[in-house]
Amino acid sequence: MFKRKLGNQDIFTPGEEDALHEATLRVLEESGVEIVSSRAREHFQRAGIEVDGNRVHPGQDDLEKFLAKAPESFEIKARNEANNIRVGGNNTVFVPGYGAPFVMDYEGVRRNSTFADYRNFTKLTQCSDNLDVVGGVLVEPNDVPDRIRHARMFSAAIKLSDKCFMGSSMGRKKARETLDMAAILFGSKKYVADNVVLITLINANSPLQLDVRMTDALEVYAENGQALCLASMSMSGTTAPATIPATLVQQNAEVLTGILLAQIINPGCPVIYGSASSLLDLRGADMALGSPETAKMFNGTAQLARRYDLPVRGGGALTDSLFPDAQGGYEAMMNIFSAIKSGFNFMLHSAGLLENYMAMSYEKFVIDDEILGMIGNYASGLEVNEDTIAEEVINEVGPGGNYITHDHTFSHMEDLRTPNLSSRRKYSSEKDQPIARERAYQKRQEILEDFEAPDLPAGIVEELKNYINDLESRSGI
Amino acid sequence: MFKRKLGNQDIFTPGEEDALHEATLRVLEESGVEIVSSRAREHFQRAGIEVDGNRVHPGQDDLEKFLAKAPESFEIKARNEANNIRVGGNNTVFVPGYGAPFVMDYEGVRRNSTFADYRNFTKLTQCSDNLDVVGGVLVEPNDVPDRIRHARMFSAAIKLSDKCFMGSSMGRKKARETLDMAAILFGSKKYVADNVVLITLINANSPLQLDVRMTDALEVYAENGQALCLASMSMSGTTAPATIPATLVQQNAEVLTGILLAQIINPGCPVIYGSASSLLDLRGADMALGSPETAKMFNGTAQLARRYDLPVRGGGALTDSLFPDAQGGYEAMMNIFSAIKSGFNFMLHSAGLLENYMAMSYEKFVIDDEILGMIGNYASGLEVNEDTIAEEVINEVGPGGNYITHDHTFSHMEDLRTPNLSSRRKYSSEKDQPIARERAYQKRQEILEDFEAPDLPAGIVEELKNYINDLESRSGI
Repeated sequence: MFKRKLGNQDIFTPGEEDALHEATLRVLEESGVEIVSSRAREHFQRAGIEVDGNRVHPGQDDLEKFLAKAPESFEIKARNEANNIRVGGNNTVFVPGYGAPFVMDYEGVRRNSTFADYRNFTKLTQCSDNLDVVGGVLVEPNDVPDRIRHARMFSAAIKLSDKCFMGSSMGRKKARETLDMAAILFGSKKYVADNVVLITLINANSPLQLDVRMTDALEVYAENGQALCLASMSMSGTTAPATIPATLVQQNAEVLTGILLAQIINPGCPVIYGSASSLLDLRGADMALGSPETAKMFNGTAQLARRYDLPVRGGGALTDSLFPDAQGGYEAMMNIFSAIKSGFNFMLHSAGLLENYMAMSYEKFVIDDEILGMIGNYASGLEVNEDTIAEEVINEVGPGGNYITHDHTFSHMEDLRTPNLSSRRKYSSEKDQPIARERAYQKRQEILEDFEAPDLPAGIVEELKNYINDLESRSGI
Repeated sequence: MFKRKLGNQDIFTPGEEDALHEATLRVLEESGVEIVSSRAREHFQRAGIEVDGNRVHPGQDDLEKFLAKAPESFEIKARNEANNIRVGGNNTVFVPGYGAPFVMDYEGVRRNSTFADYRNFTKLTQCSDNLDVVGGVLVEPNDVPDRIRHARMFSAAIKLSDKCFMGSSMGRKKARETLDMAAILFGSKKYVADNVVLITLINANSPLQLDVRMTDALEVYAENGQALCLASMSMSGTTAPATIPATLVQQNAEVLTGILLAQIINPGCPVIYGSASSLLDLRGADMALGSPETAKMFNGTAQLARRYDLPVRGGGALTDSLFPDAQGGYEAMMNIFSAIKSGFNFMLHSAGLLENYMAMSYEKFVIDDEILGMIGNYASGLEVNEDTIAEEVINEVGPGGNYITHDHTFSHMEDLRTPNLSSRRKYSSEKDQPIARERAYQKRQEILEDFEAPDLPAGIVEELKNYINDLESRSGI
C-alpha cells in the first residue's frame, strides 16, 4: 500500500466535469439502467427510486442521499494484520492481473493457464513488496471444474498467502461459499460480519444493464458488509460510445446505480467506484489498452469518482504487447504512471498481463512489480527539510569542490530506491549481460524455488479441505 | 512541437518552494558562483553585482532586475518555416539524444560512433513527427578531427534537415564559426542578427562554477541574440549534494547566475532554465537515470523555473538499460511522462539513448519516437463538447444495445492515435510475431533507405563546402 503525496491529475475543467455529471443525470432520467433481477428492482422501489418496467431511474436527490452513505475509505483485514489495507484517500493498493485464460511462456508460446499457474502467481504476489491482494482470478485455472473453481482458488490463496483477499462474484451461491470459507479462516461468522475481509468485483453489463448474477452476488456481499467494487467494463465503439467523454458518462450512470443498490441494501457498505472500460481501435477491431487515450480515460474516471467522494478503482499495467519487450515495458509504465497520477485507490491488473487481458506472463509479472515499486516511490514525493536542503553543506563544499567525502553524502548513501529488476551496470564486452526478460525469468525462478507459505493452523487447513470435499461430492465431481 | 493541455505537476508545496528559493539566495550570498573568465566577471561588475575575487554574488534585487528581462517564450526559426518552434508557455519541443560516444548496435555490441551514425540520426530526426531540432551532437562523430567536428556536423545537419538547429558551444571560436555557417544558410548576417536561428547549451561546471569556454561561447551567442540553454549538469553525491532538494538549490544558483550573465550582455536575450543534473547510486557508483528519483527531480526543476517565468529544459528518454528491452522501455516512458507533466519546454535527450548518456541506439530511437508520440497525444487532453459527450447517442442505443453500427461510432473511427511502432495484433501460433526491438530495426532500415533530403539551393551547398574547406586548410587537416 502506497501513500501518494503528489496531487491528482484532473483532465477536465470544473465546467467540463459538471457537464459530464449533468449528462449522466439526464441519461439516468431518460434511459435509466436496466436491472434484470426483479428482486434487485424491488430494492430500488423500496428506496423510493423511480422504476419503470425493468429500468430504474435514480434522480439527483437519490444520488445525493445514497452516495452520502458510502464511506470515503475503509479497511480490509488480512489474516496477518501487518497486511491490512485501507482503501481510499491518498492510499493506492496494487492488485495483480485478473482473469486471463492463457499464460504466455518464456519461449513466447501461449498456452492455456492451469491451477499450477494460479498457485504460482499467488506465490509471486505473496512475495511482492508492492502487491497487496490475492485470491482473485489471478489467472484462470482451466483444469479445475467451473463449479468448484472459486473454492479451490480461494483455498489455495488462503494457504499460500496472508495478504487481503478478493472473493468470487459469480452469483449468489459462489458468493455465499466464499463467505463460508472466509469464516473458517477468520474463526467465526461473527468476525466476518464485523469486519471487511473480502472485496469482490461487480461489473455492469454495458450498456446500462446489471444482470442477475451480478446483482445476486452484490446482495450477498452487501448484506454481509463486505467490500464491493462496482465497475463498468464497457468498450468504446461496441458497448460504449466511440468517444471518451461519452464512455465516461455511460460508465458513470452504470457505476453510480450499482453503488446505490449496495447502499440501499446496506447503508454504509464499503464500495469502490470502478472502471475497467477500454478502447477499441475500430480500424482493425483490436483492443488498444496501450494507447495514450487509455491513460486519459483513467484521469477522467478518477476525476468523476472524486466528485462523489468515493474510493476509485482503475488502471493497471496494461499493454497490447504479446511479449515482455520494450512495448510491454513502456505501455505498462504509461498506464501505471497515469493511474497513480489519476489517484486510483485500488488498482487491479497491476502485474502480469500481456495481450490486453488475454495472457499472464511470469516475466511480465516481475517487470510490472518493479514498475509498481518505482511509481510508488515516485508518488511519495520528496522530503524537504533543513537536512535535505543542506545549504551549509553547499557553502562548505563551495565552487569547484567535491561532495564525495562529505559526511552529508555518506549519511544519504542509502536514500536511492534499490531496484529489484532494473540494472544499472555499465557495458562490458567481456561479461554476460542479460536483458530484462532474462533477468525476470531468473528472478521468478528464484522466488518460486525459495517460496515458503506463511503458517496456517492445521485445524483451518483441515476444515477448508472438508468444506471443499463436501462441495465436490455435492456437485458430483 | 506539442501543446500541453493538462496542468503541470508541482512536487513542492508553496512553502517548500519558497524555502528552496531562499536557500538559493543565501548560497549566492555566502558562496557565490565562481566565474573563471575575468572578461565575464567584468560584465557582472559593470551591472553592479557584487564581485569578490573570482566569485560573483547576485542578490535578490539583481535576480529580480535581470530575470525580468528574459522572455517567457521565444521563437526559433527553421529554414523551412513550417518547422519553426516556439519555446515556452505550454509548448514542448522534443530534441534527440546528445553527445553519446558510442552506438549500441542491433546485435547488442557497443562500438565507437562515427560521422555516418551522425548523418543517420539526423535523417531519423528529420523524418520524425515528434522531434523538432537537429544539429546538436546527436552522436559523437569520433572519426572527424575535433577542430572541425562542429562544422562538419552542422553542415551535415543543414544538408539533411530543414528543422531547427542547435549550435556548438565549444568556446568562442567554434561558436562564431557556427554563426558564420548559419548566415550562409539563412542568406545574410543580418537575418541571423534579427532572428533566433540557433540554440546552444551552456553547462555550469558544478559545483558553482562557470568556466571560460562556456562563458566565452555564451557571450558570442548572447551578443548575437541567439538562444541559450543555461544548464546545470551536476551529479548528486559528487558534484552536487546527495539529496535532491539540495541539488536543486545548487543548480538554481548556477543556472540563474548564467542567465543573469546573458541578460547583462544582451537584455531580452532568449534563454532557457536548464537541468541535466543526475543521480548517482552511491552504493556502486552507477548512474541512476532510470530511477524514480530522477522523475521527481524533473518535477522540482520545472517548478523552480516556473517561479521565475522562464522556459525550462529537462527530461529525456533516459534509461540505465544497455539494451532496448523492457527496462529501456519502462524507464524511458517514466522519464518522458514525468518530464511532460513537469511542463518542460525543451526536452533534450528525447530519443535514442541507452546506458545513461553513453550510447545511442537506432532501435531505441524508433522506440522513443513512439513514446514521444504517445505522450504528446496524452498531454493534449480531451475535447469535451456536445458531440463527444453524445448524450443523445447513449439514450438512443439504450440498455442492452450496441454502438457498432451507429453513425456516431463511424464518425469517430479515426479518433484513436495510430501507433508507428506499437503492435495491437492478436496472438497467433502460425504467424511470425516480431518483438518491438525487431520491429524498430525494420522501421529504421525503411526510413534510412527511403530518405530524401529536403531541397537546398546549390549555391548554399557550395558556400558551406568552401567555408569548411577553408577551416580545414587553416587548421592543417
